[in-house]
Amino acid sequence: MAHALRLGRRRMGQCWPNPAVGCVIVKDGRVIGRGATAPGGRPHAEPQALAQAGAAARGATVYVTLEPCAHHGKTPPCAEALVKAGVARVVAPLADSDPRVSGKGFEHLRRHGIEVTTGVLAEEAARDHAGFFLKVGEGRPLVTLKLANSFDGRIATATGESQWITGPEARRVVHGLRAAHDAVMVGAGTARSDDPALTVRGWGEVRQPVRVVVSRLIDVPLMSKLASTARQVPVWLAHGSDAAPATRKAWQSCGAKLIPCEIRAGRVDPHGLLRELGEQGLTRVFCEGGGQLAASLLSADLVDELVGFTAGLALGAEGRPGIGAMGVDRLSEAPRFVLDEVRAVGPDVMHRWRRA
Amino acid sequence: MAHALRLGRRRMGQCWPNPAVGCVIVKDGRVIGRGATAPGGRPHAEPQALAQAGAAARGATVYVTLEPCAHHGKTPPCAEALVKAGVARVVAPLADSDPRVSGKGFEHLRRHGIEVTTGVLAEEAARDHAGFFLKVGEGRPLVTLKLANSFDGRIATATGESQWITGPEARRVVHGLRAAHDAVMVGAGTARSDDPALTVRGWGEVRQPVRVVVSRLIDVPLMSKLASTARQVPVWLAHGSDAAPATRKAWQSCGAKLIPCEIRAGRVDPHGLLRELGEQGLTRVFCEGGGQLAASLLSADLVDELVGFTAGLALGAEGRPGIGAMGVDRLSEAPRFVLDEVRAVGPDVMHRWRRA
Repeated sequence: MAHALRLGRRRMGQCWPNPAVGCVIVKDGRVIGRGATAPGGRPHAEPQALAQAGAAARGATVYVTLEPCAHHGKTPPCAEALVKAGVARVVAPLADSDPRVSGKGFEHLRRHGIEVTTGVLAEEAARDHAGFFLKVGEGRPLVTLKLANSFDGRIATATGESQWITGPEARRVVHGLRAAHDAVMVGAGTARSDDPALTVRGWGEVRQPVRVVVSRLIDVPLMSKLASTARQVPVWLAHGSDAAPATRKAWQSCGAKLIPCEIRAGRVDPHGLLRELGEQGLTRVFCEGGGQLAASLLSADLVDELVGFTAGLALGAEGRPGIGAMGVDRLSEAPRFVLDEVRAVGPDVMHRWRRA
Repeated sequence: MAHALRLGRRRMGQCWPNPAVGCVIVKDGRVIGRGATAPGGRPHAEPQALAQAGAAARGATVYVTLEPCAHHGKTPPCAEALVKAGVARVVAPLADSDPRVSGKGFEHLRRHGIEVTTGVLAEEAARDHAGFFLKVGEGRPLVTLKLANSFDGRIATATGESQWITGPEARRVVHGLRAAHDAVMVGAGTARSDDPALTVRGWGEVRQPVRVVVSRLIDVPLMSKLASTARQVPVWLAHGSDAAPATRKAWQSCGAKLIPCEIRAGRVDPHGLLRELGEQGLTRVFCEGGGQLAASLLSADLVDELVGFTAGLALGAEGRPGIGAMGVDRLSEAPRFVLDEVRAVGPDVMHRWRRA
């Protein structure tokens, strides 16, 4: 199962709107088939592993990181394929939370005499599929917030210089994290001041994440890297209804997709924003700032994971804060996170946390 | 030598104005004597180790973490004691930088037919004795700056709530760090808002560090914990010449020591401050903030080590910054530090850096 989880994990960010599932088929103590959801979400993991195993699948044990699907979608259901192949046993950590599947996949298998074991490494699997479960259950993607800051929590000097606070090793890890998410999201301020490409570089052939810019008035220059590459890699603009029609049209003609969002307190409402992104099929969103968007997501308790990169330099109180105003008066009101991992990455420190 | 360094390290913060030295005597592959500078600086490490070894010291090898002293100070010189004991060989990483000793200890030993080896673990020893070397060489103590902050670099909410951002495990480590320094230093703002005791608690019997408060006008209430305990554990007030005579007198009658310092740009000048503390014999100072004092020391390039504790909560941009205004416009102007160690401490992250 650990092997199957690893296979699935490698496809994170590559399979949306589907979950990244891994599958390993074992017979007589030997692995005879392996598969993971293909980029784009199809084919699923199970048919690929079954194809590798061939006739040997008869009587084998199948380890799969999520309940095999039972409904006729764009592919024939995996539960049927497993029955047809004659496997003896299916081991899965969890039931799918998609109501079209939940419990039905296991039921189908059992009805055809296949032994089903669940609960194995369920906690790990639940974390791996958290984005998919959030999308199905709450209609929103998982949100990872990244901050790359100085020792004293600053993301740029007072004059706006931010390249580079952290070293190339940290930036490489950031590209890997982008690849493991369906979309990379920034606020308009960051899009303006850094003119970022927000693509994955240096990680080989990957499905590029969608680039989401949150800007009520679409206040991002059309001369930006994002605009000029919107036909190669998707750019989605989450904006308010008061964005100028001419601006909308100009971005559309660059190839960007417009996502009208609810406005609350003068800003794109973070709940509405994530609901829209969930509706578009996103399961995992990687937010790279800036401070206002980060504060808005944190205040709305919508940040599931935090990844911090801390560099060994001090910028002082005039430097730009990584997280904007949150209106927190008491420590007990502050959003809290639990440490998952901490390690040195090149000259910097990487620390990962998840919602408490 | 590693063993001797460990012995000396345990006495850090306990021996000022002397260096914390460790000594191990080995004969025929067995340790026959061990010693470390006693709290208060006397006796030195070597005579204690020699006393343990007794007559067996004849022909033995002595590992000592600093050149044995050769001058008649308040104790007879260690170099002489080693000669008298008839040891065969002395291994030391480094020469002492104190001009009364430097090279003379080794010379004395060699002149009496003792083999002297130097350079062993010299880098480690130089770091352990860095505070002592700075005091002798530059007339100032080593400065360690500690920050305990939220994920986004805040040390308190906008309303000033700061207890507790980090957990009890981090606070315990902080007490250990206090014990390993000769003095704990804070600015007046921290002394006022937190009313801290700044003592070492929970680490058994230790020589308590001097408590230094930096405040141009001695703007700290006489009802504070510091004032009420100044007779038990030293309180030094680093102030400007314009501090009110009545205030000075009142603190003196509480038992505090007054340290008049140079004023520059309206504040206690950090260079002058550390010179004064060096003159008082301090070799290692642990600065616990606040933001202004931290910024002043960092801007003057007087911070040798940084220790950060990062908690998994976000306080937002209105929270109090751990480091005050520094006037850094370009990243290239920012003081840089090199990572020494990073690990989880309870629910928090501890990261230690030293000057680049």
